[in-house]
Amino acid sequence: MNEIPKFAAPQSVTTGPVQGSRKVYVSPTDRPDLRIPLREIALSTAAEPPVRVYDPSGPYTESDARIDLARGLEPVREAWIAGRGFATVAGRAIKPEDNGNVGAERLAPLCPATRTLRAGKPGQLVTQFEFARAGIVTEEMIYVAHRENLAREAAVEGAAERIADGDSFGAEIPEFVTPEFVRSEVARGRAIIPANINHVELEPMAIGRNFLVKVNANIGNSALSSGVAEEVEKMVWAIRWGADTVMDLSTGRNIHNIRSWIVRNAPVPIGTVPIYQALEKVGGDPLKLDWEVFKDTLIEQAEQGVDYFTIHAGVRLAYVPLTAKRVTGIVSRGGSIMARWCLAGHRESFLYERFGDICDIMRKYDVSFSLGDGLRPGSNADANDRAQFAELETLGELSKVAWDKGCQVMIEGPGHVPMHKIKVNMDKQLRECGEAPFYTLGPLVTDIAPGYDHITSGIGAAMIGWFGTAMLCYVTPKEHLGLPDREDVKTGVITYRIAAHAADLAKGHPAARIRDDAMSRARFDFRWMDQFNLSLDPDTACKYHDETLPKDSHKVAHFCSMCGPKFCSMKISQDIRAETEAMAGMAEKSREFLAGGGALYVDAAE
Amino acid sequence: MNEIPKFAAPQSVTTGPVQGSRKVYVSPTDRPDLRIPLREIALSTAAEPPVRVYDPSGPYTESDARIDLARGLEPVREAWIAGRGFATVAGRAIKPEDNGNVGAERLAPLCPATRTLRAGKPGQLVTQFEFARAGIVTEEMIYVAHRENLAREAAVEGAAERIADGDSFGAEIPEFVTPEFVRSEVARGRAIIPANINHVELEPMAIGRNFLVKVNANIGNSALSSGVAEEVEKMVWAIRWGADTVMDLSTGRNIHNIRSWIVRNAPVPIGTVPIYQALEKVGGDPLKLDWEVFKDTLIEQAEQGVDYFTIHAGVRLAYVPLTAKRVTGIVSRGGSIMARWCLAGHRESFLYERFGDICDIMRKYDVSFSLGDGLRPGSNADANDRAQFAELETLGELSKVAWDKGCQVMIEGPGHVPMHKIKVNMDKQLRECGEAPFYTLGPLVTDIAPGYDHITSGIGAAMIGWFGTAMLCYVTPKEHLGLPDREDVKTGVITYRIAAHAADLAKGHPAARIRDDAMSRARFDFRWMDQFNLSLDPDTACKYHDETLPKDSHKVAHFCSMCGPKFCSMKISQDIRAETEAMAGMAEKSREFLAGGGALYVDAAE
Repeated sequence: MNEIPKFAAPQSVTTGPVQGSRKVYVSPTDRPDLRIPLREIALSTAAEPPVRVYDPSGPYTESDARIDLARGLEPVREAWIAGRGFATVAGRAIKPEDNGNVGAERLAPLCPATRTLRAGKPGQLVTQFEFARAGIVTEEMIYVAHRENLAREAAVEGAAERIADGDSFGAEIPEFVTPEFVRSEVARGRAIIPANINHVELEPMAIGRNFLVKVNANIGNSALSSGVAEEVEKMVWAIRWGADTVMDLSTGRNIHNIRSWIVRNAPVPIGTVPIYQALEKVGGDPLKLDWEVFKDTLIEQAEQGVDYFTIHAGVRLAYVPLTAKRVTGIVSRGGSIMARWCLAGHRESFLYERFGDICDIMRKYDVSFSLGDGLRPGSNADANDRAQFAELETLGELSKVAWDKGCQVMIEGPGHVPMHKIKVNMDKQLRECGEAPFYTLGPLVTDIAPGYDHITSGIGAAMIGWFGTAMLCYVTPKEHLGLPDREDVKTGVITYRIAAHAADLAKGHPAARIRDDAMSRARFDFRWMDQFNLSLDPDTACKYHDETLPKDSHKVAHFCSMCGPKFCSMKISQDIRAETEAMAGMAEKSREFLAGGGALYVDAAE
Repeated sequence: MNEIPKFAAPQSVTTGPVQGSRKVYVSPTDRPDLRIPLREIALSTAAEPPVRVYDPSGPYTESDARIDLARGLEPVREAWIAGRGFATVAGRAIKPEDNGNVGAERLAPLCPATRTLRAGKPGQLVTQFEFARAGIVTEEMIYVAHRENLAREAAVEGAAERIADGDSFGAEIPEFVTPEFVRSEVARGRAIIPANINHVELEPMAIGRNFLVKVNANIGNSALSSGVAEEVEKMVWAIRWGADTVMDLSTGRNIHNIRSWIVRNAPVPIGTVPIYQALEKVGGDPLKLDWEVFKDTLIEQAEQGVDYFTIHAGVRLAYVPLTAKRVTGIVSRGGSIMARWCLAGHRESFLYERFGDICDIMRKYDVSFSLGDGLRPGSNADANDRAQFAELETLGELSKVAWDKGCQVMIEGPGHVPMHKIKVNMDKQLRECGEAPFYTLGPLVTDIAPGYDHITSGIGAAMIGWFGTAMLCYVTPKEHLGLPDREDVKTGVITYRIAAHAADLAKGHPAARIRDDAMSRARFDFRWMDQFNLSLDPDTACKYHDETLPKDSHKVAHFCSMCGPKFCSMKISQDIRAETEAMAGMAEKSREFLAGGGALYVDAAE
């Protein structure tokens, strides 16, 4: 990607289906206008139906995808939003500081796609939370319900037996998701549908403990790296491999204009950390931050269509000294910026003091809160300390304020936490924050593997996802070392899809095992192409297989290079199955044998 | 490595220290003849001592390593073994079938290193278990005790506070390991020291729930791939990155001669699955296997110095039908071979019926048992089924037989198991097998990620290691797809070192956090070289960092490319620490503030 000029408009991105899959759209019978995307993995056997999987990749993976980045994606929500009677507003004018006062020669262009800009009025139902509380099922809720079911209508009706058998630690995952269930989950604050009314290109999705576990991927340029085209490609690339939301954490120049391309071309919710841009506007000095510049940034980004904001309002003045003796202090950028601000003037955080005002702004556009964990531990040594938990308690307090103001809320979590301290985090979060969705970064279960922190954190992510975390923020192999490139983004997303799926299996999500079982049957039948296509990354699976057995004939071979033909346990096992089925009385004989004792040796201790 | 002729003698392997480390040897004050290896990571600050870590890499990582593969490693155990009065034996003559009847032009040479061949006599103390039961502390036990302590004598004496705080689920990890503790653990069967009396090059190590969690790496050629030099390099490469034992799973030709090079040059215990070679000897037909060829193979490999044998004696005739309705049948090679054998003649396994004879042979050389889980699940769908657990119960029965015969025993475990079914495996194993060390393959927590199964299994490995598994058998990215190459071996080992270390942290091993805390302090201080050197893979950490910040000056920069200088939370956090320390009354003020309530918002529900 390095050849693409840093400040040029993005021209193209990766398109086309994932190997072995095709994009399908399904519609509820009573709402043919809603087209819910799924990815269908074809199998080479007639004995099994194709496998449909959740698909956040947007139109980019259609087989005849026609993408024009300058026009943005088709505004699928436009009719729904237009029907809700929001006011059309002129919008805030773009200011030079929105792009870091960059000179003309280094100014990335604005995405030229234009949209009708809207804002809710006081008293009007605007957010999904407000609609849900009012008992109204929105199009977004219907869409989400069908999406979460993975088109299982037929499967559920015909199912003889439930194969899921997890332990969900008190979650209430339904056998089948109805629009009313989605509404009730949103109404009680247990799920959010991040969906800014100005992000009309969005394919709605839900984040909540009783839905499939989601994955977020972070992208964004920094002062030292990356251009516009590279960031847009990273977004498209991240969702291709399964990112459910994307956070744009850009901190360099051109922040406004880069974001315009990302949001207009994003079928997934986009999250940001507004304090980053606010800090750029004041020249990088935390002490120059104030409510006015922050408020201005919130409105700027809300109007652009950002779906959720990380707000570090739990970093209170009184908590800052609690971090002084930590091994790694404050490791959240937003947290450290606010701590610096508080400490310098010995004053309470303006994010905390102005929290009600922030809610009022975010409600107008239905921007969801992601209450930031600015005091998350940056090392195992600091895990679960008083600073971290004091902030979490404040986030619980603020969740209730946000709900009272009509906003949707999720809560960010750590960080660096050894395995034995993970569940405490989940339990405390559920208790303090009234089951608002938890959204964690890992956690990393050890500090000693930079270069492999997708793995150290994938372990913790799988566990906390099982315990109840609704969305897992990915970590890439470059964590602690540098900015992720495109390959790092893919590795991070795939690792986190593993963690999220492992969590769904362990929670007992009724649909989760369908894909695993299809894979296992393909293994037993030596259907190699089906194995590749059912995998999270067909390209890599196929490439690894072909390194030792490249021929087409090997794709139907009843062995692989690990054992070779003579030692293949699967092949022997198939023979065994055939034989045992032929020997009718065999199983009965075994039972008799076992009932009679069967042991040839007695206990040495006896 | 592809350029090296497949049948040539290996000439060289990777040598030299891991970046930033040096090999040190420490000796107990009363045993200056014992030289226990550690790796010492130097730090760039005078404020902290260097960090010493466990080091299974052998002499290869000495700074002036002089390796002559044809002569083998220095026989460090020769004097200890010679002092025990074992009979010198002539040994079994090598037969053509030992190398698969390969023709002269394709015959790999035998390693020319010669050793005195020994065997124990009936009634003589031979195995570590027998010595331990007799109350005798062997050199191996002293060695292991000091090795497990990581030279913490000084640290323990001076320690003001214990930083470890895990949950060990009933393990009894001591604050400090004494030789007598090692003896008692071996005597009660809770730990093994795999140490064939004919593997005099071995640097002894222990596998047990109350010691550091260990990692095994599998190598070995197959009928379709790999040559001698490549396998020897894989062994050296695997231990360089932290493999504690290596299993040679070769299944092609030249098995005997490849193994001669591996054992003579291995400072770690070598494990094998003798049934693989026995099968080669009978032309690959499981039905031609019998006790005589198996017995011959056991003696052949025991005389070569193999330290532990996987014996699938728990695959009993009566259990085979229990696998018939499985989604993936039998996926263990050894298990499927034995199932085929049992089923064909409707006869009980000769491994089970001859188990006492097998014990007698293994005891003579102190080859440890690794009782194989031939019926382990090959898919989430088959996890924890009756076939798997019936076999585990039989392994428990056989453990007691082996102990009664004087042998050391560990138990192999799964496989493919979703997270919510992992702990049941550990608990049942501890109960059925009298706390004999558990040695698991993963487990893989989902089936859908071929190409990433080091990660799917690393998640399960970390968890089951925490719950009590003593050794984790690595899985590489090539699992299910092909034979691992050198890079895959490294990725597998590093991933499993992460899992094992995460488990040690969570169990509360008293020394585990030393390295994490040193890393965290290096992060906070921006000591980049220390961060790289303290990591499990300094080369990769350094390379990733240098992709965006390659200059030497960046190695001391107070920021990295992720955030750039303005946004560095660590830097801001350092400022905060300085300020809070300066403001003496600050903490007190905070306490007053908090005591007074502190909240600006009241609960919305009130």
